[in-house]
Parts: sequence; structure tokens; C-alpha cells
Amino acid sequence: MISVAINGYGTIGKRVADAVAAQDDMKVVGVSKTKPDFEARVAVEKGYDLYISIPEREKLFDEAGIPVSGTVEDMLEEADIVVDATPEGIGAKNLEMYRKKGIKAIFQGGEKHDAIGLSFNSFANYEDSLGAEYTRVVSCNTTGLCRTLKPIDDLCGIKKVRAVMVRRGADPVQVGKGPINAIVPNPPTVPSHHGPDLKTVMKGVNIHTVALLVPTTLMHQHNIMVELEDPVDADEIKARLDETTRVMLVRTSEGLASTAEIMEYAKELGRSRNDLFEIPVWEESINVVDGELFYMQAVHQESDAVPESVDAIRALLEVEDDNMKSIRKTNRAMGIL
Amino acid sequence: MISVAINGYGTIGKRVADAVAAQDDMKVVGVSKTKPDFEARVAVEKGYDLYISIPEREKLFDEAGIPVSGTVEDMLEEADIVVDATPEGIGAKNLEMYRKKGIKAIFQGGEKHDAIGLSFNSFANYEDSLGAEYTRVVSCNTTGLCRTLKPIDDLCGIKKVRAVMVRRGADPVQVGKGPINAIVPNPPTVPSHHGPDLKTVMKGVNIHTVALLVPTTLMHQHNIMVELEDPVDADEIKARLDETTRVMLVRTSEGLASTAEIMEYAKELGRSRNDLFEIPVWEESINVVDGELFYMQAVHQESDAVPESVDAIRALLEVEDDNMKSIRKTNRAMGIL
Repeated sequence: MISVAINGYGTIGKRVADAVAAQDDMKVVGVSKTKPDFEARVAVEKGYDLYISIPEREKLFDEAGIPVSGTVEDMLEEADIVVDATPEGIGAKNLEMYRKKGIKAIFQGGEKHDAIGLSFNSFANYEDSLGAEYTRVVSCNTTGLCRTLKPIDDLCGIKKVRAVMVRRGADPVQVGKGPINAIVPNPPTVPSHHGPDLKTVMKGVNIHTVALLVPTTLMHQHNIMVELEDPVDADEIKARLDETTRVMLVRTSEGLASTAEIMEYAKELGRSRNDLFEIPVWEESINVVDGELFYMQAVHQESDAVPESVDAIRALLEVEDDNMKSIRKTNRAMGIL
Repeated sequence: MISVAINGYGTIGKRVADAVAAQDDMKVVGVSKTKPDFEARVAVEKGYDLYISIPEREKLFDEAGIPVSGTVEDMLEEADIVVDATPEGIGAKNLEMYRKKGIKAIFQGGEKHDAIGLSFNSFANYEDSLGAEYTRVVSCNTTGLCRTLKPIDDLCGIKKVRAVMVRRGADPVQVGKGPINAIVPNPPTVPSHHGPDLKTVMKGVNIHTVALLVPTTLMHQHNIMVELEDPVDADEIKARLDETTRVMLVRTSEGLASTAEIMEYAKELGRSRNDLFEIPVWEESINVVDGELFYMQAVHQESDAVPESVDAIRALLEVEDDNMKSIRKTNRAMGIL
């Protein structure tokens, strides 16, 4: 049984905690919070041992009646590995603490590749992280690109990818963030950093990305154009994506015509927190014209990379050398299609 | 003095009416409405003669205290030419009435090219409409593509264009339309109809487009990728777009980082209805990588094609054979940069 600590119990951390707890070869030894908020209270009610990131704040947790098991450093003593889900940039600062403690660590896509030295996707480069000390699960957008581009590359080779990523302005809980009524080039420079990020796990892929923010909270949406090495027809692409795990074909004709309807589908599937771990691809959008593949997909930014964090644990600890075996094990425990 | 009738005084029609009234070689002989609403009242207050599309409704106008000068057919008797700005699909039905009356007519982009037989953009194919009976000003999105792609094609030739068009879900006044919180592939099939529409005015251009709707009302936004025939550097593209009329370079660094800030700029320019007739292109986004040009632009869907309707009047009536002379005249009267 692998003992896993979750440092940072926010949007990603709480999902990783539940995903780890669902595995039969892992257990959560503790989760950490900086503030005694509703998430901290629910973590304790769920039975997770709660540790605090800022020892001076113990009094605040006491006042809120939320029991604390110790500090983050105490939590690390109990664990074989830590999943760092702290806010962007904090993870890289925590690396020094993990090094001193001699504990392996998994970081999230908010950290820079260079700060961690290694990046991870279950399908593209699981083996690179086997036995490593630290790795970084690439961001939700990069995970989404990788999930569909890897099987396409395997099927027929990729000459060049162009992707325009229409990103949700804020997560549902981020009430202070915009835009409310604007389209924001973000970054305004082209190409965006998403292409280089994909190259950290799909080495050598030729990709240029463009990104912007729009007033929605539910999902990102990607418009992908792929010049193919060995052109195949649209049906072959559909068949390949249909058989690829953590990818699902959805049909506008079935009422799944937008990101809102896709998230409603996740509710019908009975997922915890209505999460959608799979990358939905609109079947109607898949088309090959003049040797170039076009398709549209969506990304549930809060959850799509969570199963990858679980797989990364097995890779770093070398308890499973075969990526597909870990993927199947993770999927089964999480109910992934 | 050219006598112009405006059939349909809604989002486009009211703007075309004011643009025509501002020209020194044209006058508005009447505008038409189907309902006695606030737009009808304001049209009369502005001094436009109001005609009604549905004679049976005259009583409703009387009850509302809005004076009516006659029916649309009466209006056509007064005019040398009619600009049809009725809702999508109605224009094509009106064509038979215009034919019977023997009056030339200009239609909007909501009509299908095949229904009208000819399409118009001031820069791309003004000469095609010289002396024609009917023409169609291409849609706001197609006008936006044409405004920047034509000068780029003139500068260095276009091999292939890919464009992802992030469209506003509804105009500001359309309170019943969505989406409020979703990204909607629209159409869900790829490529979209926008590429073929551009070919009606830029013959032979190789373009594939992808389109979607997002929850915003202010402007469309385009992400454009152009494989160039004779690669030039980004500075040459910037210089060419900067000197192109009805196109403006905007800078994120000057606070114009989104469609909302650009529309605020239109207010500062003191434009009627805060319109932005020009196509703003984000200067920071212009980049050439491996012979491929990338840039981002926005489109004020309510107004960008309005100056083209004015130019189309001069083309159909052959009062000006030189497109640039008409463009300059229209610009001067409308205060276009």
C-alpha cells in the first residue's frame, strides 16, 4: 500500500485525494490546507487527516473547530510520495522541502517544466518518469492536447499541428475573476506557451498554439488542425479516438452541442463533483480535407489531469512499469469510460 | 443626389441609414419597420420618413402615435436604389418585389450568395458590382477576414489560410439569446461556411475556417494563420496593415487587451452608437514563424460592414468607378480612421 500525501487541498488536490483513495494500492495519509475554510472542514468530515501549511495559523483552525494533525512537514513523514497541488509557482518553492525530506514528489502543470526538470503524461511518456524523484503532470490544456494527438500520431504520423485554445475565463468557484463580457487574447502574443509545453511530453511534435479567454467557467475548448504524415480518412480517426481510453466521442445530434451540455452529461454519469476526466471530441467536427485533419474537443479543466497524477505515483515509485496497466487500474477505480 | 431607401431599420439598417445620410452625394428617402417600437419612434424623431412593411399594421403605428409615410412599395417609388437590411432570409424573398419595381438592391450577408448571385467587398471586388442590378455585402465576419487578408495577399501572396472564429453569442440587444455559460461549436462541422463565403469576394483564396459561439455580446474575435507565398517579416505585415484603411493596429500594452477595451476605445473616438467600423488587429499577436503568419483581430459585428453598404451604392449606380475614391469618400463622411 502506497502512502500518499496531498499538499494543497484545492480544486486539483481534493480531486487527486479522492482518486488516490479510490485505488486499491494506495491510501491518503493526509491533506494540507492554509485556511480553515469549507474545504478544510469537508476534508476532515470525509476522514482525511488535515495538516496545515502555515504552523502559525493553528489557532485559526482551533477557533473554527477543525482538528489539525500537524504541519505539512509532519505529513511528509507519514508518506512515501507527495502530490503537490499548491497554487502556481508555490510547488517549485516546495521542491527544496521535499528534497530535504528525501521524498518523491509530483507537481502540477502550473509549475514550469524547467523548475521540475521532467514532465509527465500517462500515454506520451510514462516511462520517462519511472523511478524519477520528481515529475510534473502537464496542465489541463496540454493533457487534453496529448490525449488526442498521441493516438493520432500513432495512427498516421503528425507533420504539423495548429491549435486555437478557447479557454474558460475562470473556474466556477473563482467569483472574482473575469472576463464577464469580453474575449481576451491570452497571451496576446502568438504562438502561445501551450505548444512548447506539449513538447515536454510529446518530444519533437511540430505544434503552434494560439490561446484566448472567454466568459465561461465550465470547460476549455480546442480547435485543432493537424497536417498528417500518412493521410487517413475521417472514419479511421473516429475509430481510433473511439477506442482510445480517456477520450470520448460526443455527438451534437445527441444533444451534446456545447460545453454546458457535456457537463450535464457528466452529471448523468454520476461522477463525483460532476467531473469529466475524459476528453470529449465532437464527432461531427472530425474531418480530413486535403490531408489535414480538423476536430474540436473540450477539456474539463478541474479534473482531466487527475487520473494522470495517480498514474504518475506508480511511475515514480516503479510499482508498475507498463503505462497501460496503470491506466487501466486507475480508470477502473475512478469509473472512467 | 442619390435617393436611397432602407428596407429594414434594425441593427444594420439604422446604421446604414445614418452612414448614407452623412454622405454628400446621397440622401435617405425612407426607412421601413414592421413594428412601432422604440427604433421606429427614434427614426421619425431623427427626421427619416417611415414606411411600413406590413400594411395591415398601420393601425398599430397610429395607436403608438408614430406617423407613417406609406408602405415599402411606396418607399421604393421614391428611391434610386434600396439597401435591404431585413432579417436573414427575408432579403432573398424581397428580391422579387425589387425586380418588379425595377429598382437596384443591396443585400446583407445573412442572405445566401446564390440567392443574390453576386457578393461585394469594397477592397476585394468592387469592380464586379459596377452597374449590377443586385449585390450582397458579405457578412461582418467575412468582411473582417477580407479587410486584412486582401492587403496581405497583395503584399506577399497567400498560400493557405486557417482561421478560427470565436463569435459573439448574441448582439447586446438580443436578450433572449445565449449562450450564457458555454462554448458552442457553431457549426459543429468543420470547415465552416465562412471560408466559402470569403471566396465569393476573394476568388480562389485557399481558406478553411472553424467557428464557435461564446458568451459575449461585444465583438467577434478571429485567430488567423496564413501560409505565405513570399514570406516577409512581421514588421512588413504590421506596416502594411497600419497603412490599410478600415484596419487599425491596437496594442495590449496600451490597455487594449480585450474586445471590451476596444469597444471602450470606440466610445472615446466619439463614434455614433460607439461603433467601430475598422477591424482592430492586435499588434503583439502579429508574428511570422516558418513562413506562416499568425495574428488576432476583432470584428464589431453591428457596424464593420456598414461602410461597404455605402460603397456598394456607388458601385451599382456606377457613380464612381474607382473603389479607393468611394472608400475615401465614405470614410471621410463617417469619420473612419
